[in-house]
Amino acid sequence: MDAMTDRLRADIQALVPFAERLADAARGETLPRFRSAGLAVETKGDLSPVTAADRAAEAAMRTLIAAEYPDHGILGEEQDSVGLDREFVWVLDPIDGTRSFVTGSPLWGTLVALSWHGQPVLGIIDSPAVDERWIGCIGRATTYNGEPCRTRTLPTLGQGFLFTAAPDLFTATDRPGFEALSARVADRRYSADCYAYGMVASGWIDIALDPDTKPYDYMALVPVVEGAGGVMTEWSGARPRIDGSGWVVAVGDPAQHDAVLAALAGA
Amino acid sequence: MDAMTDRLRADIQALVPFAERLADAARGETLPRFRSAGLAVETKGDLSPVTAADRAAEAAMRTLIAAEYPDHGILGEEQDSVGLDREFVWVLDPIDGTRSFVTGSPLWGTLVALSWHGQPVLGIIDSPAVDERWIGCIGRATTYNGEPCRTRTLPTLGQGFLFTAAPDLFTATDRPGFEALSARVADRRYSADCYAYGMVASGWIDIALDPDTKPYDYMALVPVVEGAGGVMTEWSGARPRIDGSGWVVAVGDPAQHDAVLAALAGA
Repeated sequence: MDAMTDRLRADIQALVPFAERLADAARGETLPRFRSAGLAVETKGDLSPVTAADRAAEAAMRTLIAAEYPDHGILGEEQDSVGLDREFVWVLDPIDGTRSFVTGSPLWGTLVALSWHGQPVLGIIDSPAVDERWIGCIGRATTYNGEPCRTRTLPTLGQGFLFTAAPDLFTATDRPGFEALSARVADRRYSADCYAYGMVASGWIDIALDPDTKPYDYMALVPVVEGAGGVMTEWSGARPRIDGSGWVVAVGDPAQHDAVLAALAGA
Repeated sequence: MDAMTDRLRADIQALVPFAERLADAARGETLPRFRSAGLAVETKGDLSPVTAADRAAEAAMRTLIAAEYPDHGILGEEQDSVGLDREFVWVLDPIDGTRSFVTGSPLWGTLVALSWHGQPVLGIIDSPAVDERWIGCIGRATTYNGEPCRTRTLPTLGQGFLFTAAPDLFTATDRPGFEALSARVADRRYSADCYAYGMVASGWIDIALDPDTKPYDYMALVPVVEGAGGVMTEWSGARPRIDGSGWVVAVGDPAQHDAVLAALAGA
């Protein structure tokens, strides 16, 4: 990120209103279908659920991007990628937490990210059912419903609260690290999906992590967490990129980041 | 419940507005403290968390009961019981899901139940942070935010969605039944606490269950689920009472109740 000029940074910040328009367009497709009778749930090849709401929300966002920024690329969960080699690529998850969406649980969200040469530089976590929105962008403070938000300090790891999407997603390879970290914190909870990373940014919890996620799952989360004073990396410590591993962890207090990574590595 | 006269039923239904006043009073103490900086979290003898919000909300409800119905008993999570041998006993959980409350997750709730000779006859699930309220009472339809709600049909158990509070709450004794049922349904999720039983009543999911709960955890849920067309029992099949086992399960479609109990019993 050091190579980024002030001019480029300002250009990216100027895209925040457009990113909000994308989130608004997705809301227009998701919220009316939430808890509606007769919403069909299909199962994709990877066994994850998908609905007409996912497809319509992604299509609405792609239409806006194609109209306003036809030279930008697009990576989305539900359709084929466009121009992944371009300088700017929008990374879209129309419904993160479709398992929540289809069960009437309100903590699903829409994720909108902007990638610059593969790096996350702008991200929105939008939670329509509870009307909450986090916006992160390089060079400015993350906002929660329009007001700046900050992560909290964590004096000792033992006071930490940890969230992850589901215990069933871990494998024999990554479960030991998850259990080792769990044993060192005060409590762990499940099922919040992207909302958990907003909770880190707002200083309500300390750590959010997930194994084996896709770029559309994690790219938007990085600027939100960083702009609130936290650190978000891969379990290896590298900053997440569009071509990253997908094992991600967000830590509200940067002073605890090394200890979290060490626990995940089984140290 | 067959012994109940129409007159008694009407008397109980007439208490619904008072039960709503109790839930309102609790909201007045919980919601202003939710996500507030500096809310101290203490750990009780059973290692569960408690805050000033729990204590103030229960005190507010007890004050109203003592003033309006001094001849009714009270069983609450945070203070000693009063008159458990009386005909009517209010069963109160000021914050069900304190682990959610202290982590800024919005799906905690206040539970208000009325017990008649040990049987649950009126219940409210109030979720202040998302402004949602379910009200169940014998002889009338359960309401969700003022409108009648119904459970959904479940043609086969394999299409079912199951929620429970946390995987870590099961023991060697009850985990096999939980795993056996999980293996027969489409999906299982965690962390919704009392909200999951409202989700059953509204027909968004099919099954909610928990092991080893207390009367203040489950009594309010029973009239909510029953009044929406579902069945709520102990894992043994008995209707929950104030002196019950605490292993409870709610099934939206009564036709699947036997199959759910059989799976939980390892059959």
